[in-house]
Amino acid sequence: MNITGQHILSSSQFDLPLLDHLYRLADTLVPVARGQMTTAVLRGAVLGSIFFEPSTRTRLSFDTAFMRLGGSVSHTTGVEFSSIVKGESLEDTARVVGGYTDVLVVRHFEEEAIYSFASSTNIPVINGGNGAGEHPTQALLDLYTVRSEFKRLNKHVDGCRVAMVGDLRYGRTIHSLVRLLSLYRNLTFVMLSPKGLEIPRDFIDAARERGHELIETNDLNQGLAGCDLIYATRIQIERMSESEKAANKGVNFRIEKSILASVCRDDAIIMHPLPRDSRPGANDLSNDIDGDPRLAIFRQADAGIPVRMALFCMVLGVEDQVKDSLQPATWWRPEYIGPNDASFYRMR
Amino acid sequence: MNITGQHILSSSQFDLPLLDHLYRLADTLVPVARGQMTTAVLRGAVLGSIFFEPSTRTRLSFDTAFMRLGGSVSHTTGVEFSSIVKGESLEDTARVVGGYTDVLVVRHFEEEAIYSFASSTNIPVINGGNGAGEHPTQALLDLYTVRSEFKRLNKHVDGCRVAMVGDLRYGRTIHSLVRLLSLYRNLTFVMLSPKGLEIPRDFIDAARERGHELIETNDLNQGLAGCDLIYATRIQIERMSESEKAANKGVNFRIEKSILASVCRDDAIIMHPLPRDSRPGANDLSNDIDGDPRLAIFRQADAGIPVRMALFCMVLGVEDQVKDSLQPATWWRPEYIGPNDASFYRMR
Amino acid sequence: MNITGQHILSSSQFDLPLLDHLYRLADTLVPVARGQMTTAVLRGAVLGSIFFEPSTRTRLSFDTAFMRLGGSVSHTTGVEFSSIVKGESLEDTARVVGGYTDVLVVRHFEEEAIYSFASSTNIPVINGGNGAGEHPTQALLDLYTVRSEFKRLNKHVDGCRVAMVGDLRYGRTIHSLVRLLSLYRNLTFVMLSPKGLEIPRDFIDAARERGHELIETNDLNQGLAGCDLIYATRIQIERMSESEKAANKGVNFRIEKSILASVCRDDAIIMHPLPRDSRPGANDLSNDIDGDPRLAIFRQADAGIPVRMALFCMVLGVEDQVKDSLQPATWWRPEYIGPNDASFYRMR
Repeated sequence: MNITGQHILSSSQFDLPLLDHLYRLADTLVPVARGQMTTAVLRGAVLGSIFFEPSTRTRLSFDTAFMRLGGSVSHTTGVEFSSIVKGESLEDTARVVGGYTDVLVVRHFEEEAIYSFASSTNIPVINGGNGAGEHPTQALLDLYTVRSEFKRLNKHVDGCRVAMVGDLRYGRTIHSLVRLLSLYRNLTFVMLSPKGLEIPRDFIDAARERGHELIETNDLNQGLAGCDLIYATRIQIERMSESEKAANKGVNFRIEKSILASVCRDDAIIMHPLPRDSRPGANDLSNDIDGDPRLAIFRQADAGIPVRMALFCMVLGVEDQVKDSLQPATWWRPEYIGPNDASFYRMR
Repeated sequence: MNITGQHILSSSQFDLPLLDHLYRLADTLVPVARGQMTTAVLRGAVLGSIFFEPSTRTRLSFDTAFMRLGGSVSHTTGVEFSSIVKGESLEDTARVVGGYTDVLVVRHFEEEAIYSFASSTNIPVINGGNGAGEHPTQALLDLYTVRSEFKRLNKHVDGCRVAMVGDLRYGRTIHSLVRLLSLYRNLTFVMLSPKGLEIPRDFIDAARERGHELIETNDLNQGLAGCDLIYATRIQIERMSESEKAANKGVNFRIEKSILASVCRDDAIIMHPLPRDSRPGANDLSNDIDGDPRLAIFRQADAGIPVRMALFCMVLGVEDQVKDSLQPATWWRPEYIGPNDASFYRMR
Repeated sequence: MNITGQHILSSSQFDLPLLDHLYRLADTLVPVARGQMTTAVLRGAVLGSIFFEPSTRTRLSFDTAFMRLGGSVSHTTGVEFSSIVKGESLEDTARVVGGYTDVLVVRHFEEEAIYSFASSTNIPVINGGNGAGEHPTQALLDLYTVRSEFKRLNKHVDGCRVAMVGDLRYGRTIHSLVRLLSLYRNLTFVMLSPKGLEIPRDFIDAARERGHELIETNDLNQGLAGCDLIYATRIQIERMSESEKAANKGVNFRIEKSILASVCRDDAIIMHPLPRDSRPGANDLSNDIDGDPRLAIFRQADAGIPVRMALFCMVLGVEDQVKDSLQPATWWRPEYIGPNDASFYRMR
């Protein structure tokens, strides 16, 4: 369970005991994430935040997590990463930035880039999303959210029924989360995707091998019925070819109020990796379900901070110093964050 | 006078007792702003700095103010705000970033966006400029500057004569400042603008209702004579239509050395929200008056730090902890900042 | 040897006693740069990092150096520097940002801009690269690297043989380093450049006046033989005119494995300011020498942190507080950074 000094490149590096350990630490750090407590376990440490692809949420979440631990963040963002324009290899970039900092978070649009980075520095490299590959910290915060919500609802991950909705072929968050959920027992995965965007065969095989049931369908009503967890993602219909569009004619993957009312369990939870496309006609989670207590998307986003804090503490080997380092924060905090959060976010 | 936990969206939220309170706190923080003292009242706190529109001065000023209080800053800048490109609603963005941080500064090119932000999070949201709407912290630092300069000159805001010069129709800093100055008594406002860019009718009515005199003119010599305060802004003639240009033919709003020498009071002060357009032909405050002690534009820019620090302390409820937290800084500081500041910026 | 409060604009501001002083302080700070120790000598101080031209390495290096000293960094990057777009003069920008911060690092594509900055604020301004002019901190870290490597190899800078390779006409890092190396005695400079990109005449004259030997050649084999130090830079052949290309036909300045094996000393060191262009066909330091212990380019990049830390401490006058401020860091650090660093980067 000791991952000090390790690169975090894939969700497959995690087993259940390690996840338990990480999530206990994340629980301890929730008051820090919420600005009620402070810690300085990483005062003096520097995070190198290297984004070759724009990102708001993920970058801000990593930054804030590191700052809340007392550390500082040095950034490079955007495609106009100047050294790269000048022909620098990823290996050179990684070695140089590795010599400046204590830990790196790297997002790159090419799947292989993260491995070039990780091979060039002994500083821990955390994968912040590698093209169509993985987004392991998203999966970690997703599972943390599932566990927290299920705990509140007196449910267990073992034996639960999960709907995965959307582009299951290229959706890296889906892939990473399915892998983590598969560590539990006797799940039923309902895979809801348009034709052409089905989950890759090896995920199906791997899940079945571990004893899970896996159902593929493109009937939203039937698929969502009875599910404990609904994980929605956006489908970019506009990127489909004409023949793909024709194959999916009349198919709808937009989860909205009416379907929630008619087929979904009262104690279901609905998650989404965000951003959610709220433009008219977008094939994404509808805004008309905002305020429904089943919608856990913002609690999920919030979870990114304590989970990423816990991960930083573990790869940098300061996890044992966390508890004694906590101090009450002295500034004002609201009782809860969003207009619909009253019952979930009461400050402890 | 307690604004802990409040959003700061408009200069109209401030009355004189609240301003007195804010400015006393700002006075206390001046040595911190100047790097002579340090404080850590916000150590562990995180500011989310969200600029949908580029800004140098305002962003750096907010950032530095927060850092000088011991806090950390997490940023997103530029139009390529990646989640927005993907169709995320402002409400979703606000709720997510609100879950990461302790206070938000938001600049948006659309006037209504700030209200969407503020309605979606209970974290205090500070308006950093909303389109043609308001720029309340600019008005706060402007008035702080007026008061500091007048104090030095043994003058009072009550009864003073103020010239507002430039684009008075769309100038959000002018609008916010007129609103604040109107809290005082018996002012005379001289409104100097080209035809078509006059101050909106409701500002005139409101000022007169409060007992102020309001004069509209486009004769610069006549308008500036006798004024205690001259607030200049740029006029973007190049944006005018041909007929507007014709209507303003021969009119000049460029405040330069000759006019200062011929018509302005010796104890006048000249302010400007900056940036000042120094390109040849720009219809803006001239560079030939640099070094004139009446030019208060850099003292005004400097004031942004202590005023924004005070505002952060108040909305985050740490104002009572400030005084006891002050420690002498240990690094070198110059006696004064700019080449013409010797008599104004002697370190205390 | 006291440079407290001074602008650092040119490598010509440094003499040998000052360099000795700076490098002793840098030595003390190496454990902080490597994340083994922490210091808070600049806690509460703010660096203004103003890059009018994109830069990854230099910016991150300055940022990290300042953060490792306990300070905070306020940034503006990119060409879309918003105030400048609005016509603000460099003098106005410098005065305003100087009023916010404690020290400025400025990179500008025009050679003269740094002087406008420096003349407008009494806050120390550090030149982070001014067009084709200078890059003094690069020269400082380069010489620090030479001295560290030579010390390891029991060599002296006095009397050594140095090859400078590449675009010697416009290469600002070359110019600044030649100036610093010339402070020593009896060096032999071998100047290897394509026709048309030779070192300017005044550098040759100045070096000879100080008693150094200076050889110009474009024969790489002959030039590199016997050199203690080889400083390579990229040649941008694609920028040459057709006649220049013709004049340099058949000439090769790519330092690769075969030439290293055939003509270079076993105890030579090879440096490069980075980034290195690793694209096929680039006229730059070859990747096939990676892993050769003579290749000091990453040790050189690492040196940027302690040298820039030392410089910040000196201009801000906190150098005497450094030693007593050191505390052991509590987080995990690798024994060495890159895959080929084992023998050089063992943590002390």
